[in-house]
Amino acid sequence: MPVNLTVPEELVPVPGIRLAAVEAGIRYQNRKDLVLIEMAEGGTAAGTFTRNAFCAAPVHVAKAHLAAAAPRLLIINSGNANAGTGIRGMDDAKHSCEIAATALGVSADEVLPFSTGVIGEPLNVEAIERALPDAVAALSEDAWLDAAQAIMTTDTLPKGVSRQVALAGGMVTITGICKGAGMIRPDMATMLAYIATDAHIPGEDLRAMLVDAVNLSFNSVTVDGDTSTNDACILLASGASGVELVSDADREAFTAVLNELAMELAQAIIRDGEGATKFITLDVRAAASRDEARAVAYTVAHSPLVKTAFFASDPNWGRILAAAGRAGVHDMDIDAVQVWLDEVQIVLNGGRHPDYREEDGQMVMDRAEITVRFDLGRGDASATIWTTDLSHDYVKINAEYRT
Amino acid sequence: MPVNLTVPEELVPVPGIRLAAVEAGIRYQNRKDLVLIEMAEGGTAAGTFTRNAFCAAPVHVAKAHLAAAAPRLLIINSGNANAGTGIRGMDDAKHSCEIAATALGVSADEVLPFSTGVIGEPLNVEAIERALPDAVAALSEDAWLDAAQAIMTTDTLPKGVSRQVALAGGMVTITGICKGAGMIRPDMATMLAYIATDAHIPGEDLRAMLVDAVNLSFNSVTVDGDTSTNDACILLASGASGVELVSDADREAFTAVLNELAMELAQAIIRDGEGATKFITLDVRAAASRDEARAVAYTVAHSPLVKTAFFASDPNWGRILAAAGRAGVHDMDIDAVQVWLDEVQIVLNGGRHPDYREEDGQMVMDRAEITVRFDLGRGDASATIWTTDLSHDYVKINAEYRT
Repeated sequence: MPVNLTVPEELVPVPGIRLAAVEAGIRYQNRKDLVLIEMAEGGTAAGTFTRNAFCAAPVHVAKAHLAAAAPRLLIINSGNANAGTGIRGMDDAKHSCEIAATALGVSADEVLPFSTGVIGEPLNVEAIERALPDAVAALSEDAWLDAAQAIMTTDTLPKGVSRQVALAGGMVTITGICKGAGMIRPDMATMLAYIATDAHIPGEDLRAMLVDAVNLSFNSVTVDGDTSTNDACILLASGASGVELVSDADREAFTAVLNELAMELAQAIIRDGEGATKFITLDVRAAASRDEARAVAYTVAHSPLVKTAFFASDPNWGRILAAAGRAGVHDMDIDAVQVWLDEVQIVLNGGRHPDYREEDGQMVMDRAEITVRFDLGRGDASATIWTTDLSHDYVKINAEYRT
Repeated sequence: MPVNLTVPEELVPVPGIRLAAVEAGIRYQNRKDLVLIEMAEGGTAAGTFTRNAFCAAPVHVAKAHLAAAAPRLLIINSGNANAGTGIRGMDDAKHSCEIAATALGVSADEVLPFSTGVIGEPLNVEAIERALPDAVAALSEDAWLDAAQAIMTTDTLPKGVSRQVALAGGMVTITGICKGAGMIRPDMATMLAYIATDAHIPGEDLRAMLVDAVNLSFNSVTVDGDTSTNDACILLASGASGVELVSDADREAFTAVLNELAMELAQAIIRDGEGATKFITLDVRAAASRDEARAVAYTVAHSPLVKTAFFASDPNWGRILAAAGRAGVHDMDIDAVQVWLDEVQIVLNGGRHPDYREEDGQMVMDRAEITVRFDLGRGDASATIWTTDLSHDYVKINAEYRT
């Protein structure tokens, strides 16, 4: 069961962006599994992709196409990752772009391909080809929720967020969708996320904004430490509103909302993490560097012992301390370390706080959303990441599902 | 259920070493939880300890005492780790040494303390003090198996191995015991291991031998990636046989057997890993460096997705490849990578082997012991590590047991 996550109530259309979701029968039956996202001519785009060395064929192709031209079309399938598929996988990804380009009347390098699902099986391009005409005919500004549903794999709920921002030149919209529940420790971006705005933003600015937003959001969540082969996050700016970011104030207003929207999407992936029963925030402060703060946060977040203690609602702070102690922080002075579970301080100067009572820790652990805060007493850097617990259902889902 | 592991049939006494195991009631009831290991005067000792920054009070004290004097007595309790216990924990560890020293008539710095069990609770030193006279009276050369049982926590079986080696000067014995099943990713040594020989070996030589043996064994296993706060491995050489290592041949014969014994002990921990249903060997070859080979092996070994696939006996090689791809190997040429499951080659030049058939992978995955072999095609370094799968029982054990 997802932790405090529901189906998005309303995803606001973004002028200049049309979507379609159809049943192609690539792997799943009786559900939509193929998505098109079209951007009107004149828009800009930015993308971040997985750093996994075994990245999927569509990731290679999407990166090359994005570097060559402003995209007009994104083609996304669920059920098959087209990863670990060698030369044939590359041919399939390129061929998908070609047939989609023909169907829409654009050039192949204006199409970006994305795949998510089982690794190591050939992609059924014929199924995609058969479904394309219907998909192109169905393109509409109102299909964001449909698209969010069609890109799901082990997700239990579609994920999407919309915001509107008042800029000097008028109101602009940002809407984003994403998918992901397991194999989640994004390293550039999460499995698949698509964010679009109708603001007019030059490509270079857009890339800088995306990198900042992704570092704060998709690159700060983990379910199981497993970086996917297919991670991608795409930010589209159609410019259809005619509104530009004319001042620092505009830029700040826009990026603040963009960052918040990206964080909400990334957190939705954690709330829907495989088998998740808790939503856990790891907040590491007073570190000597951001890297060090992130190392402590990720080491605690990935510890199976910490994660099973959260699942059991067991205030087993010894496991939290032991995980922090193996994070590889050079010369850590454990006598300077403080740790809180929400408002309850459990560790004072490296040992159990004298006033700490088991029932106070239990009270916090019984909550569905818990923040573990560290003060390392070494500097002024900090980092925040989000993760899940490790439950019976995580094992069940991953023993039964073929990634 | 442990994987191909049974109670040791015979643990051969080591002249010059006496042991005792008694019920002190530190935490467990109706089982032995306090162990003494005494070495006759004139022996040498070497130790390796956890690198966890939050290492336990007894680790601090044992390291200091080992540096100050040749030990005469090891005092080990299970049920309580005396970790995360601050100043009081240090006082308790030192006090345990003092009362044991008095009982045996040696000095306090000739006593090394060890604890394993729950983190963050004060150690019941009174219980130890009450049990000491009986323990000292019970010291005998025949109590190795008793001791192996008394140091267990979540272990399901006692672990011990004996070997005899013919050297130029005569036969010597090596016997070792260890404990550990969870919070296992030793970084210096596993939770607790004690190996003794009656050979006569100078302290400096003994230390070098221990470091080599530990790197090949306890520092090459992982259950859950969680380095314990209490890891320690002690090697005692009583010299009671009067046999010295007089030649390179003697030294090679002795260290070969020592290394093999240490590997067997370390593997016993993995075979008894929490919830383990499989014993998995990760064998990475043709890497550019040993560190790189170990990084790939550990990343695959720690991947929850790989571990759950092994639990499900699912030949899901995409997960294995994805984990290797995120191991942080610089500039990995994925087209040069080969992967085998036992005798079945699943990956040829970075993609699925054209002759690979699902049923061949399934046949291997159905086995209780499986080797995953990588050829990275980058150099001639290699590394081998051992790990378990991730099962429902792992979650159950760790959601219910308070480390």
